[in-house]
Amino acid sequence: MKFLLLIAHGSRRQDSNDEIRQLVERVATLDDNDYDGVEAAFLEIAEPDIHQGIANCIERGASSIVAVPYFLAGGNHVIKDVPGEIACAQAGMPAVDIQISRYLGSSEPMANLVLDCSRQVT
Amino acid sequence: MKFLLLIAHGSRRQDSNDEIRQLVERVATLDDNDYDGVEAAFLEIAEPDIHQGIANCIERGASSIVAVPYFLAGGNHVIKDVPGEIACAQAGMPAVDIQISRYLGSSEPMANLVLDCSRQVT
Repeated sequence: MKFLLLIAHGSRRQDSNDEIRQLVERVATLDDNDYDGVEAAFLEIAEPDIHQGIANCIERGASSIVAVPYFLAGGNHVIKDVPGEIACAQAGMPAVDIQISRYLGSSEPMANLVLDCSRQVT
Repeated sequence: MKFLLLIAHGSRRQDSNDEIRQLVERVATLDDNDYDGVEAAFLEIAEPDIHQGIANCIERGASSIVAVPYFLAGGNHVIKDVPGEIACAQAGMPAVDIQISRYLGSSEPMANLVLDCSRQVT
């Protein structure tokens, strides 16, 4: 079974972490979602951390996981910290195949999303 | 003339700020972009700041501006800091009409973008 693990930074504001959890629920219910499960994890501060997030996927039956870094810029978190945590978790859980996708900010449709967003004035 | 001003956090890493500038260029060249100009501004650290970003739009002929907060979570930056800076700038530049759109992370298509992103394994 294939899982998507959305990895966000994590915040001291519980509302902010809850936004990530709600986003994960929305991804899971999309018509074209072909993952068997979608989970959230946080690099810092909030729970579950990346190791626990991967363990949660495995507990639900995951044999492969795509980790999506939910970050806007390709800074140290994306280049070093997230891959480092995943490599460490992978070493301890060799039975699951973990891959990392491009980070959100580098996604091609981002420009369209900005334009779409601009049309929704609050 | 109507401008889009993309407001990012700003980073000490120049590459990260350049990503925002490149994104702005991509937005400007989209087929369905109906703005007369697209500019970038940064809440902290990088230049131009929000005040200067608005001034740049006006210098290029803007009579109205939609500011898009390029943030993933609805934290203090989105709720307080960005609107505060814009209100301050608006008070000093009353001839331009400035509106704020919803922030990027609250955008409806975000769930689709996460799914799309997960299909692009690096």
